[in-house]
Amino acid sequence: MNKPEPPSAFAPSAIQSTPIPGSRKIYVSGCAHGDLRVPFREIALHPSAQEPPVTLYDPSGPYTDPTYVVDIDAGLPRLREAWVRARGDVEEIAGREVLAQDNGDVAPEKLTPPFPKQPRVLRAKAGACVTQLEYARQGIITPEMEFVAIRENLRRASSSVHGAGRDGESFGASIPDFVTPEFVRSEIARGRAIIPANINHAELEPMIIGRNFLTKINANIGNSAVTSSMAEEVEKMVWAIRWGADTVMDLSTGRNIHNIRDWILRNAPVPIGTVPIYQALEKVGGVAEDLTWELFADTLIEQAEQGVDYFTIHAGVRLAYIHLTAKRVTGIVSRGGSIMAKWCLAHHKENFLYTHFDDICAIMRAYDVSFSLGDGLRPGSIADANDAAQFAELETLGELTKIAWKHGVQTMIEGPGHVPMHKIKENMDKQLSVCGEAPFYTLGPLTTDIAPGYDHITSAIGAAMIGWFGTAMLCYVTPKEHLGLPDAKDVKDGVIAYKIAAHAADLAKGHPAARAWDDALSRARFEFRWEDQFNLALDPETARAFHDETLPKEAHKTAHFCSMCGPKFCSMKITHDVRDYAKAKEEAERGMAEMSERFRDGGGEIGVPVKS
Amino acid sequence: MNKPEPPSAFAPSAIQSTPIPGSRKIYVSGCAHGDLRVPFREIALHPSAQEPPVTLYDPSGPYTDPTYVVDIDAGLPRLREAWVRARGDVEEIAGREVLAQDNGDVAPEKLTPPFPKQPRVLRAKAGACVTQLEYARQGIITPEMEFVAIRENLRRASSSVHGAGRDGESFGASIPDFVTPEFVRSEIARGRAIIPANINHAELEPMIIGRNFLTKINANIGNSAVTSSMAEEVEKMVWAIRWGADTVMDLSTGRNIHNIRDWILRNAPVPIGTVPIYQALEKVGGVAEDLTWELFADTLIEQAEQGVDYFTIHAGVRLAYIHLTAKRVTGIVSRGGSIMAKWCLAHHKENFLYTHFDDICAIMRAYDVSFSLGDGLRPGSIADANDAAQFAELETLGELTKIAWKHGVQTMIEGPGHVPMHKIKENMDKQLSVCGEAPFYTLGPLTTDIAPGYDHITSAIGAAMIGWFGTAMLCYVTPKEHLGLPDAKDVKDGVIAYKIAAHAADLAKGHPAARAWDDALSRARFEFRWEDQFNLALDPETARAFHDETLPKEAHKTAHFCSMCGPKFCSMKITHDVRDYAKAKEEAERGMAEMSERFRDGGGEIGVPVKS
Repeated sequence: MNKPEPPSAFAPSAIQSTPIPGSRKIYVSGCAHGDLRVPFREIALHPSAQEPPVTLYDPSGPYTDPTYVVDIDAGLPRLREAWVRARGDVEEIAGREVLAQDNGDVAPEKLTPPFPKQPRVLRAKAGACVTQLEYARQGIITPEMEFVAIRENLRRASSSVHGAGRDGESFGASIPDFVTPEFVRSEIARGRAIIPANINHAELEPMIIGRNFLTKINANIGNSAVTSSMAEEVEKMVWAIRWGADTVMDLSTGRNIHNIRDWILRNAPVPIGTVPIYQALEKVGGVAEDLTWELFADTLIEQAEQGVDYFTIHAGVRLAYIHLTAKRVTGIVSRGGSIMAKWCLAHHKENFLYTHFDDICAIMRAYDVSFSLGDGLRPGSIADANDAAQFAELETLGELTKIAWKHGVQTMIEGPGHVPMHKIKENMDKQLSVCGEAPFYTLGPLTTDIAPGYDHITSAIGAAMIGWFGTAMLCYVTPKEHLGLPDAKDVKDGVIAYKIAAHAADLAKGHPAARAWDDALSRARFEFRWEDQFNLALDPETARAFHDETLPKEAHKTAHFCSMCGPKFCSMKITHDVRDYAKAKEEAERGMAEMSERFRDGGGEIGVPVKS
Repeated sequence: MNKPEPPSAFAPSAIQSTPIPGSRKIYVSGCAHGDLRVPFREIALHPSAQEPPVTLYDPSGPYTDPTYVVDIDAGLPRLREAWVRARGDVEEIAGREVLAQDNGDVAPEKLTPPFPKQPRVLRAKAGACVTQLEYARQGIITPEMEFVAIRENLRRASSSVHGAGRDGESFGASIPDFVTPEFVRSEIARGRAIIPANINHAELEPMIIGRNFLTKINANIGNSAVTSSMAEEVEKMVWAIRWGADTVMDLSTGRNIHNIRDWILRNAPVPIGTVPIYQALEKVGGVAEDLTWELFADTLIEQAEQGVDYFTIHAGVRLAYIHLTAKRVTGIVSRGGSIMAKWCLAHHKENFLYTHFDDICAIMRAYDVSFSLGDGLRPGSIADANDAAQFAELETLGELTKIAWKHGVQTMIEGPGHVPMHKIKENMDKQLSVCGEAPFYTLGPLTTDIAPGYDHITSAIGAAMIGWFGTAMLCYVTPKEHLGLPDAKDVKDGVIAYKIAAHAADLAKGHPAARAWDDALSRARFEFRWEDQFNLALDPETARAFHDETLPKEAHKTAHFCSMCGPKFCSMKITHDVRDYAKAKEEAERGMAEMSERFRDGGGEIGVPVKS
């Protein structure tokens, strides 16, 4: 029943809906909004454990629900459309006509076919602001808010038998014991969290990004210069969320970019982010100087109508900051940052994303597209970390955050990059103070530059730390970073490394729902419940395969010893002895205490023997 | 010329002496001791870089020197023997006779042959203490001390063209700009560093473990129940040090344990550590209760005469602490710890390693075997981290450290294990204060329990952090931890993950020799010197292979763009524009400053136009 691992290059194979081995999909209903079906992944344990099932957060959508029949031509059910329409503040519009340049003027025979069933495009009625931020400010608890509140309460579904208790250092974050819809609303109203949820992305299962919630991770996909099919891109997205990606960024360049994005969105249960300047650059043939505000604005509308949930906008790359990168070891390493720097220099003008920032907000609030304010001047090496260019841009991102909030647009802030461990916390502290606690969304950071081929590890170290310090979402890095385009194995390795970082961060912050998972797995390990240990593993397939390499027989999965120590060194058996001994010791101490008491009762004179 | 990766199960194939691709072995001579040949790995850069070669620390021994002819039957040259004998405080002894039980009473036809050329056994003359600690206290700078001083000064051989400068947070460590032999001596005399160097391990290239030096890593090897050949074990050791292991622990159990250890030691240029209680347990047929001090002492002498450089001794598992583990989620998880706990309970007596600690010291000082005081009560899960059992044992390890120092025995302290991020620093702080700054040697720690199959990553996060905080040596964890026995790929993955952690720690501590490597690689990356980037990578083979998967052609290795962004998004080209612009801006600002100056000289009245 296990889905076999796709071949190392993604191939347009049939996407199935098989659960992670040992897990089963469950849904929890809403209260205020009865039609909510909030998904969880449930892992039943061996009866000997005498524990209830463990319930985990599950971003994988219907693709792990065996009752769901995958049909990428039809797309996912558009359950959210009713919620959006019910608010009465949107209208159907004809929508922008798709132009040849939207797909890179590709020859007709090479055109990726358009998604068959185009949904009607929705937009805010004139003057309306249809963002979750605006609703939150008005005191409205939307279905999206209730959905994420239920989703964040893992314990509500799991009910740990062994209370792990609160234990952590939260650096000013304040995660509640139980997430209420009202808490979600208040965090969004405060700007401290966002629910990226374009009104045109009706296939979405809402999720929240904020430091008082579970730490999230993003995976990047995207077609390369070599044309990839729409099925291949959908498969990449499904693969990334299967292993735990909470959002997916489509970083496609090249041809068919519009149509492929449609296929991804119509099949995506997670928020999809993009960097619109990439497509804009394609439309002007790759010549940055030829970019115009009008073309860019049109691209924003194009993507907003499709349903993109968040846009990376490099509005902080101001003309005055560019010279600050001149003496860097690695200059400007952000694609979007370098495009805008080139434009600024060519025209000797201020960045049009900065000068038109109010206009950008006006577009985004009409669809509830969230900002991911890009860090175009992020450091590309340890040498450049925390330098003047990086922090000058961050100040501007703080300024822009306030403008976005004024327009009611949800906003998060992107962060570096390459930062040695001792400089990580400064990034977080500065971001919190400068950007008014808007969620931080960091790439890594990589803690050393010496290990190309292993940058999922160099960066998981930094990601775990900055997540602990308060970063709300971690953008993954694959082993291929700096070297090539990731294949299926790389995507999975990147997602797993970042799930580790995010969970380690939640543990360290003392997230009340985090430790139950570790404890359940540790108990399974100690009690030699091998099947439970595999099923509870972040990657059950790999855990089982590694075990079976040494001890392949079925009997070894019920054996009360492990392959490392063998039966002679069974720490479990010894601990049983230890437990008996401790019990005896306690009884002896109780006996001593009773004697002391009698001694005191008898006058308590030293030297007087106590009879008993 | 590249050595192909060994098959996934180690096979007794011919061990070669091929360098890491792109590197060449160089040797630096000593000053006070002219016969020292201190090895480094040198990476020449492309002429366009106009930079001197990069020189890296190199623990791989002659196995990366193509002029060396490998002959494992002969063993490595015993260069250190002359240094030891020259001190005049050792004598040749007949040595303990090898008993059948030393090899597990294996049938003659299954006996691993003894190492052919047994060296004469050396021991301290009666009353002499032949430890590096004793020499250091006497103010003697040994050849071993000068060797490691040269070895730690990477910059001495490399001379960075771009000074990275000091930049880090050292938490009380004080790493000098230049390591002198006198600094080495003073750190050893203070107990803050050790050079594990048994007088009988003459094949050793000395290395130092202490928090004011480069962070080191250990890899574990060992034969399993299934007999492995001596060539296979030697190959494992060579493979581990090839990728950067600074010491190797032989954790063999089962048969042929004595003879295999001989083969490892005679071919090992790095310190070899063991856990002698494992062999002692084999000698009593796996029945912990049957262990005796006499048998254990004999085993220590057996291994000391062979040349083992450090012993893990679980003397801190005191009878009174065992009940503290009774309510743990994972009880006692240390093999050695559980053996001693079992012995203590069975006899209801204090741990004989604790009661005989002075006697153990007396043996170890006669060969200069260093202590690695074992943490038998380390936590085996996030739930058990930093608990009463763990810290009670640590207090005892502190007490024992002072006793070992009194005897002149070099000492380091083992640490956990499984610790969430927010509890890591407490471990380091407590260890430093309780153990008088003796070097800390930690296993990971793993920062979450949820990812069996990926524990090299869960633990690299913790290892990097605790290394930054001051841990001197990090014991690696492979992806197979908790699941099975590591194969060649697992060993390499574990070593690479830990080299990353150790180097990230050195960067964060502000080690003056650390950043040159990152900067050289980052410059190569920015200047599209692909070959330099591969050669400078921690794992050149993987970096090159990953690049070639996407851009296989030879021309792509000289291309001035990368496979991720393509030629359109070349950040390097933009940075050249940026540099021209910055230059112009500087000139303009200089012009403005001149105008201001003239303005002030001219009276400085506002409103008066300045002519020029």
